[in-house]
Amino acid sequence: MIRFDCDYLEGAHPAILQRLMETNLDQTIGYGEDPYCQAAAEKIRTACGAPDAAVHFLVGGTQTNTAVIYSLLRPHEGVLSPSTGHINCHEVNAIEGTGHKVLPLPAENGKITAQAVEQAVLAWREDASWEHIVKPGMVYLSQSTETGTIYSKAELTAIRQVCRKYRLPLFLDGARLGYALAAPGNDLTLSDLTQLCDVFYIGGTKVGALFGEAVVIPNPDLIEGFRSLIKQRGGLLAKGRLLGLQFDVLFTDRLYFRLGQHAIDLAMKMKEGFAKKGYAFWCDSPTNQQFPILTCQQVERLSRDFSFDDYGPAGPDSRISRFCTSWATTQEQIEALLNAI
Amino acid sequence: MIRFDCDYLEGAHPAILQRLMETNLDQTIGYGEDPYCQAAAEKIRTACGAPDAAVHFLVGGTQTNTAVIYSLLRPHEGVLSPSTGHINCHEVNAIEGTGHKVLPLPAENGKITAQAVEQAVLAWREDASWEHIVKPGMVYLSQSTETGTIYSKAELTAIRQVCRKYRLPLFLDGARLGYALAAPGNDLTLSDLTQLCDVFYIGGTKVGALFGEAVVIPNPDLIEGFRSLIKQRGGLLAKGRLLGLQFDVLFTDRLYFRLGQHAIDLAMKMKEGFAKKGYAFWCDSPTNQQFPILTCQQVERLSRDFSFDDYGPAGPDSRISRFCTSWATTQEQIEALLNAI
Amino acid sequence: MIRFDCDYLEGAHPAILQRLMETNLDQTIGYGEDPYCQAAAEKIRTACGAPDAAVHFLVGGTQTNTAVIYSLLRPHEGVLSPSTGHINCHEVNAIEGTGHKVLPLPAENGKITAQAVEQAVLAWREDASWEHIVKPGMVYLSQSTETGTIYSKAELTAIRQVCRKYRLPLFLDGARLGYALAAPGNDLTLSDLTQLCDVFYIGGTKVGALFGEAVVIPNPDLIEGFRSLIKQRGGLLAKGRLLGLQFDVLFTDRLYFRLGQHAIDLAMKMKEGFAKKGYAFWCDSPTNQQFPILTCQQVERLSRDFSFDDYGPAGPDSRISRFCTSWATTQEQIEALLNAI
Amino acid sequence: MIRFDCDYLEGAHPAILQRLMETNLDQTIGYGEDPYCQAAAEKIRTACGAPDAAVHFLVGGTQTNTAVIYSLLRPHEGVLSPSTGHINCHEVNAIEGTGHKVLPLPAENGKITAQAVEQAVLAWREDASWEHIVKPGMVYLSQSTETGTIYSKAELTAIRQVCRKYRLPLFLDGARLGYALAAPGNDLTLSDLTQLCDVFYIGGTKVGALFGEAVVIPNPDLIEGFRSLIKQRGGLLAKGRLLGLQFDVLFTDRLYFRLGQHAIDLAMKMKEGFAKKGYAFWCDSPTNQQFPILTCQQVERLSRDFSFDDYGPAGPDSRISRFCTSWATTQEQIEALLNAI
Repeated sequence: MIRFDCDYLEGAHPAILQRLMETNLDQTIGYGEDPYCQAAAEKIRTACGAPDAAVHFLVGGTQTNTAVIYSLLRPHEGVLSPSTGHINCHEVNAIEGTGHKVLPLPAENGKITAQAVEQAVLAWREDASWEHIVKPGMVYLSQSTETGTIYSKAELTAIRQVCRKYRLPLFLDGARLGYALAAPGNDLTLSDLTQLCDVFYIGGTKVGALFGEAVVIPNPDLIEGFRSLIKQRGGLLAKGRLLGLQFDVLFTDRLYFRLGQHAIDLAMKMKEGFAKKGYAFWCDSPTNQQFPILTCQQVERLSRDFSFDDYGPAGPDSRISRFCTSWATTQEQIEALLNAI
Repeated sequence: MIRFDCDYLEGAHPAILQRLMETNLDQTIGYGEDPYCQAAAEKIRTACGAPDAAVHFLVGGTQTNTAVIYSLLRPHEGVLSPSTGHINCHEVNAIEGTGHKVLPLPAENGKITAQAVEQAVLAWREDASWEHIVKPGMVYLSQSTETGTIYSKAELTAIRQVCRKYRLPLFLDGARLGYALAAPGNDLTLSDLTQLCDVFYIGGTKVGALFGEAVVIPNPDLIEGFRSLIKQRGGLLAKGRLLGLQFDVLFTDRLYFRLGQHAIDLAMKMKEGFAKKGYAFWCDSPTNQQFPILTCQQVERLSRDFSFDDYGPAGPDSRISRFCTSWATTQEQIEALLNAI
Repeated sequence: MIRFDCDYLEGAHPAILQRLMETNLDQTIGYGEDPYCQAAAEKIRTACGAPDAAVHFLVGGTQTNTAVIYSLLRPHEGVLSPSTGHINCHEVNAIEGTGHKVLPLPAENGKITAQAVEQAVLAWREDASWEHIVKPGMVYLSQSTETGTIYSKAELTAIRQVCRKYRLPLFLDGARLGYALAAPGNDLTLSDLTQLCDVFYIGGTKVGALFGEAVVIPNPDLIEGFRSLIKQRGGLLAKGRLLGLQFDVLFTDRLYFRLGQHAIDLAMKMKEGFAKKGYAFWCDSPTNQQFPILTCQQVERLSRDFSFDDYGPAGPDSRISRFCTSWATTQEQIEALLNAI
Repeated sequence: MIRFDCDYLEGAHPAILQRLMETNLDQTIGYGEDPYCQAAAEKIRTACGAPDAAVHFLVGGTQTNTAVIYSLLRPHEGVLSPSTGHINCHEVNAIEGTGHKVLPLPAENGKITAQAVEQAVLAWREDASWEHIVKPGMVYLSQSTETGTIYSKAELTAIRQVCRKYRLPLFLDGARLGYALAAPGNDLTLSDLTQLCDVFYIGGTKVGALFGEAVVIPNPDLIEGFRSLIKQRGGLLAKGRLLGLQFDVLFTDRLYFRLGQHAIDLAMKMKEGFAKKGYAFWCDSPTNQQFPILTCQQVERLSRDFSFDDYGPAGPDSRISRFCTSWATTQEQIEALLNAI
C-alpha cells in the first residue's frame, strides 16, 4: 500500500532526527525559552526580513488558530473565514470554545476576495440591527488553501487593503505554506507575508517536521500576553526546545524551501500524469494536493494498492479524490501511481 | 407617528399593571420561589396538559435560548438552526459564548424540514473526518418563525421523529408563540408542543407582558441544575415574582390566547388591505408579522406618518418592509395605515 | 410574617408604578434607545457630574458583573475580588463562563485593601512562573459590601492609586449603592465614584426599582461594543424603556437618595434596638444589612413571626443572622421586631 | 552547569529515539488511529489490568487536564482541587476557559483528604443559596503531588468512597505517576488506580518521553465524543503515532517503571545526602522532587554550578529550594551536587 491520503504520513526529515539524537541529553529549561528556540526564531526573522518580529512555536494547527484568533478578537466579534476554511470545517468547536463565531464567506476554489470581505463588513455596518449581530473582527485565510490553491500577491494585497481600511487584523494559516511558496506561479515570499499579514504561521507538521507551527507576529506589540495564552490553550510544550530545534534545522540551508520544492515537483509530475491520461480535476491546484476525478470503478481498483482521500461525489458515478505529495514522497511512489492509473 | 416596527413597542396589558399595583407591597422571597411563580407554573402546566412539566421563568429570549442550548449540548456538539434563526442572526456571540457552533440549515420561509435535519446528521456521520466536525447535537426552531410563518403539526411531527431517531433534543423558541397559536391554519396546541418538544417556551415579552419567557420542560428530569444555569447566565430575576405574576395573569381566562387572536385579526385585516391595493408580499405570513413589498417612493412617503422595519431590497427600486401588529395594536391604527397606502 | 430576609422583597416605589401606568401605551423603539433611557442617562450624568459618561441599563447584577468583567479582561487575565465578593460566591460560574478566573483577596469585613491588591500584582510579577499564572487584570469590589460595610474615600482612593500604578481597571458593584451613600460615616459621593472608578453601577433592584442596574462608564471610550456585549449576555431588555423610566423616576427629586436614607434610618434604629437589648453583632455595619448574633432559641422563637437570613454559626449555640431594611420597610415593621426581641 | 530545575530538561530515553529513527518513513494515517497507538493502548490496558479501558494519547498535561475536566462537568459545576493543584495554580485560565471554576480545597503537603471533599459537598448542599453557588462536580488530584508527596492506597480509597457517595468523578493527574509508582512506601499499582479512578493519566513528558500523556478511562462509555473534544482543545496530534510509539516503548519490558525507579533511587540518595549534612526539608517527599531549605548564601554559592528552583522564603534568610531528579539524571550529577553542598 502506497499512501497519498495526506501530507503527514511519515515522521520527520532525517536531518531533524539526527539533530534530536545529537542534542538528546542536553539540559535546557522548558517552555520555549531555550537556546534552540532562540536560534530558530532568529533564523525565521532573517528569512522574513523582520528583525523585530515576535516568533512563537506551537505544536499543532488547531491550537495555533485558536490561540491567535482568541487573542485578536473582542467579545462581540467573529472571524471572517472562507466557508471551506479549516477553522470553519475541521476543528470541532475550537473557535466557538473561545466565545467567537466563525463568519463564513463564499469561497471560490478555497479563496476569498477583498470584495467579499468588504461586503461582509458593510453588510454589518449598514444593518439596522448591527448591535445584535456579530461584528466582523478579523480575517482568517490559508496559504495554500484547503483545495490546494494559492493567493497571488495582488489578491492578498487587495485583502490587506480592505483589512487596513476597516482595522481588521489579517491572519494567515500557513500549515501548508512550504508548498505554497514553491508552487508554480507563486509570487509571494516570506517577506511579503510579513508586510501583508498581522499574524501568520509557517507550518512544520506538514513540511518536514515531526510537528510544530512557527507563528510570526511582525509587530511584536500586537498581542499582549501571547505566551500565557498559548499555555492556557495547551500549546506551550514543556520541552519547547523540540520545536526550536526542528525549525532551526528547517531554516538551515533553506531546507524548508527545498522540501517544499521537492513535494511540488512530484505533485506537478502527478498532475501531468493524470492530465495526460485524460482525467479531469475538481480544481486546478498548483500545490501538493491534487484532486483528480475518478470513476467509482477507478477508485475501487486503485484502492487496492494506493490510499487517497475521498472528497465526495463529482457526478452520478464519479468521485473527487485527493492525492497529496509531501517532503517525503518519492519518485518511485509517483511512478507507481502513474503506472496504475 | 404610528409604529409598526415590532411587537414590543408598548408596555403590558392593563390587567398585568393592575396586578402589579395590587401586589406591590406584598413581601415574597426572591428568585422565582414565590407563590406567584408557583401559581403561574401550575396554570401553564394545566394549559399544556403536562402535570409533571418543569416550568421556569426568564426575562428575555436571548437568555433563554442561551441557557437552554448550553444545558443540552455536550462540548463537541452544535445546534442545528434555520439559517434565518434568531440564535444564528441576532444574538451576537451568545451561543458561541457557551462554546458551541450554530449549524445553519437551509431555511425556506424561515422553516427547516425533517429531511434537512436528517441530511445534516447523516452528512456528519458519513464524513470520514467526523471526529473533526461539530456534531449536530440538538435542533432549534421558532414558532412563529422570523418570517412570520408557522410549522404545521405534520411538519413538526416529522421533525420530532427525526430528532428521536437520532436522539437530538428538540427546542422550540416561542417568543411569538401566542401569535402562532392564533394564526389561521394553525393546528398545533400547547398540548401538542408538550408532546413534540423536549423544551419550548411561551413568549411573554411580545405577547402582552412587560417582559418574560416561560420555559416548559415536559420531562422535568431532562436538565439537571437548570436553575443554577439560569442564575449563571444572568436570567434569574431577583424579584422573580414579577415574572410569575405576569404569566399568572396571562394564563387567567385565556388572556394569552385572546391577545394572540387580537393581533392576528388585525394582521389579517392589514394583509388583506395591502393585497387589495395590489401589493405583493415577500412571503405569505399567517401571523402578526407582514412583509409587503413597497417601492422606495412608497417607503419614503409612508415613513412620514408610520414607522416599520426595512428588510432589504426586493428589487432595483423596491424594499421588503415589515409591519407588525401586537396585542396592543388598535383598529384605528390599522385603518390609518390602510387609508395611507 | 414580617420579612427582613433581603432587600428585594417588595415591588417598586409607587412613583415608579405610577409612571409605568401613565406611559404604558406609549410606543417606543426597543433595546434602550428610547427617550426614557436618554432622559434617565442624562439625569445620572448630572448626578455624577460626568457630562460625557456612557450610561447603560441592565436588568440584574449578575448580568452586569459578567458583561463588565468580560469586556475589560484579556484572555490570560483574571479579576481580583474580595474572597467574600458576590462574583466569587454567589453567581455560579458566571465569570468563569467568560473564560476568566476570580482571584480572591483576603477580605476583612467584606473589604479589600490597596495593599492586598498591590501584593497580588507583585506576587504575580515576581513569580518565576508568571506566564503560567493568571494575571491580575482588574479589581472588583462592592459598595456597600456583602457584609454591609463601606469603603471610605481614603480607602477607595488608595485602591485607585494602586490600580492606576499597575493599569488595572477598577470596577465597583453598586447593587446596594443607594444604602452606602446614606450610611452614617460615608464620605463618598457619586461624583467621587466617577473620579475613582473606571466602571461602577447604581443598583436599582434593591433600592426602589422593580429591577435594573445603571452602569456608568466615566470615559465613554473605555469599552468598545459594550451594547453588543450586553445583548450577547442576555442583558439588553427588549422594552428597554422600562429601565430608563425607572431610573428617570429614581433620579427625579433625589428619590434614589431619599429611599436610601429611609432604609438607613430604619436600619440604625434596628441596630440600636438590638444593641440596647445586649445583642452582639457579627460585624459593625453602617448600612441596611445588620448581623446580630442570636442564640438558637432566639432564632427559633423569632422565626415564628419574622423571616431573616441565617449566615452560619457564631458559636456552639448561636447563629449569625441577617436582617435587612429597604426603601419599603416601615416604622411599624421595625417596631414589631424590636418588641419581639 | 548541572541542572536540577525540573524533570523535563532532557529529550527522551534513547530507546524511544531509536524507535523513532527506525519507523521514520513508515506511512501511517494520522490522529492516533495508527497501529502504534493501538499497540501502546493494548500494552497500557494490560499493565492496568483493564482490558476494556479506553486509552487516549495527548501531547501535554494542561491539554489533558482541560479536556478531561471539560468533558466531565455540567455547566453549573466546578472541580474540587487541592489549593496547590496544577490546574489551580499553573495553567492560566485553562479550566476557566471551559466555563468552570476550580474549587480549591485546603492542601496538606499537596494532598486533600476524603473528609475535605465531603465537607465541601455538604457545605454546598446545606447552603440556603446553593443554587447560586458552583456545585462541586468532580475531584482532581495528582500523584505524585506538586510537593512530591503521594497518596496511600487507604487515602485514595477513602476519597474514592466519598466520590462514589456523592457521584463525583475522580480524576488523577499522573504527570509524575512514574515517580510515584517507584516511591518508597507507595502501595498503589496501576491496577489500583484503574479500580479507584474514573479517569487518570500516565505521564510521559516527565518520565522518559519527548512528550505525551496517556489517558486511561476504565469505563470506556464514561465520556462520549472524547476524541472530538481532544481535537477541539488542540490535543489531537496529526502524527499521532509519535505518541503511540513512545508509550509502546515505555511499556515494553517495563521501561516506564524502570525509569521511575532510577529517578527515585537517585532522589533518595540526594535526600540522604542533604539530610546527612544537616539540611532541613520543606516537606518529606518520597519522590523525585526534593525541597531542602538553603540559606540565601548557600543558594547563591550553589547557583554558580547548579540550577534548581526557588519555591519562596523559608525564613528571614533562607529559601525553599526544589531539586528534581528524572529518568535522565546520572550518578555523577548527584555526586557532584552532594560534594558541593
